[in-house]
Amino acid sequence: MPPRGRVPGATGPVLGRALRVLAAFTPDRPALRLSEVARRAGLPAATAHRVLGEFCEWGALERDEAGVYRVGLRLWELGALAPRGLGLRERALPFLEDLSQITRENVQLAVREGTEVVYIERIAGSGAVPVLTRVGGRFALTATGVGLVLLAHAPADVQEDVLHSPIERYTPETVTDPDRLRHLLADVRTHGFSISDRQVTSDALSVGAPIHDGRGQVVAAVSLVVRYGSAAPHTLAPLVMTSARAISRALG
Amino acid sequence: MPPRGRVPGATGPVLGRALRVLAAFTPDRPALRLSEVARRAGLPAATAHRVLGEFCEWGALERDEAGVYRVGLRLWELGALAPRGLGLRERALPFLEDLSQITRENVQLAVREGTEVVYIERIAGSGAVPVLTRVGGRFALTATGVGLVLLAHAPADVQEDVLHSPIERYTPETVTDPDRLRHLLADVRTHGFSISDRQVTSDALSVGAPIHDGRGQVVAAVSLVVRYGSAAPHTLAPLVMTSARAISRALG
Repeated sequence: MPPRGRVPGATGPVLGRALRVLAAFTPDRPALRLSEVARRAGLPAATAHRVLGEFCEWGALERDEAGVYRVGLRLWELGALAPRGLGLRERALPFLEDLSQITRENVQLAVREGTEVVYIERIAGSGAVPVLTRVGGRFALTATGVGLVLLAHAPADVQEDVLHSPIERYTPETVTDPDRLRHLLADVRTHGFSISDRQVTSDALSVGAPIHDGRGQVVAAVSLVVRYGSAAPHTLAPLVMTSARAISRALG
Repeated sequence: MPPRGRVPGATGPVLGRALRVLAAFTPDRPALRLSEVARRAGLPAATAHRVLGEFCEWGALERDEAGVYRVGLRLWELGALAPRGLGLRERALPFLEDLSQITRENVQLAVREGTEVVYIERIAGSGAVPVLTRVGGRFALTATGVGLVLLAHAPADVQEDVLHSPIERYTPETVTDPDRLRHLLADVRTHGFSISDRQVTSDALSVGAPIHDGRGQVVAAVSLVVRYGSAAPHTLAPLVMTSARAISRALG
């Protein structure tokens, strides 16, 4: 949301309203009627209707015959230009597919956005354990294999922010104690991989490793998610780390 | 672009300017400086700067230390909600991967947007012939395997629009005569698949088939792109059609 107190003539309020209309569309609510958009954006129906009309005309949103609005192809095309989205995914995909075909397990690629994980790609292995994630979806940094890697390499202020906030519990195994989590993160940095052992769902284990850009910064993480008990995490780690390094090289 | 002549107080001009800023980012020019954005959007630098600032704050755009703007992760996340983008791709992906692994050739998934093809997914086969397409990219409806399928099943006014416009030539094989193209499109509808024989590049051939939604509408197309001479198109057609039907069923 734009800051308040702009000088008159600044685009603030109008663009702010328009962005609130876009933000009404979420993974949980990707299809909305006018009244729902107006309510979620906190706008009068007439204003919401006008903004929706302009977005539809441009192609950012699409309206079906039943009057339901959805995100349009033009916004998808524009989003496809995000270097941390499709750009990263395009370069990583061949390696993710290799990892998927060799292991027949779930392979995930994610980046950090603020204090959350955003999943950029997910390849479901044939017969692999079900996972909660979806491409474009978000998750806490504190529980998953990719999340632990991204948190371990996040700036200190992000780590402190996360460690000083309530840490959500997903299973009895989820580490919610900040001190234990600090140790886990130090281990990730020391060993070069993370293990999330039934911390997200009680039947799954994931092993993550960092992807570096050309300047050595951790820009993403890759993980394998397997059924708990089907493989020892320490046998998976070299595989994930090898794949992560190959992707890092491909990023230059 | 928004229509002119709106009543005072309508969001038109301001949102229009903002959308012009977004539209400055294209597959050819995904990274832009302030001056380039201002020029491409036709805005004074001060206005462009203000709009860019608001988009960055929201996460729609990202600005690096060198002052270069790119599409941000939040826009990618929002674009991921487009049913014709990632939604379609998620449901089709397992079938596309099967087709890719069985044939080891290029597999493509595309939809029609106006008078163009938009590529939603592309899996490059190991050792397959190089192709021009990229995910999120556009191409003419008249030349490719997916394009011929989508044009053959487009509304009559779209077909007439395309057939009455100049048809771009990519190779000596490209069909640019409207009457020959009309016959090709009729063949696509009769036989249930398209063949683009060296019409895009001189070394490649593609075979496309339509994907239907639950109401029988053609909503997308899938194709195999192989090196010219490596396989007879009529042996590929049943494979592509089978995959297209499986995806159609998955769409319900």
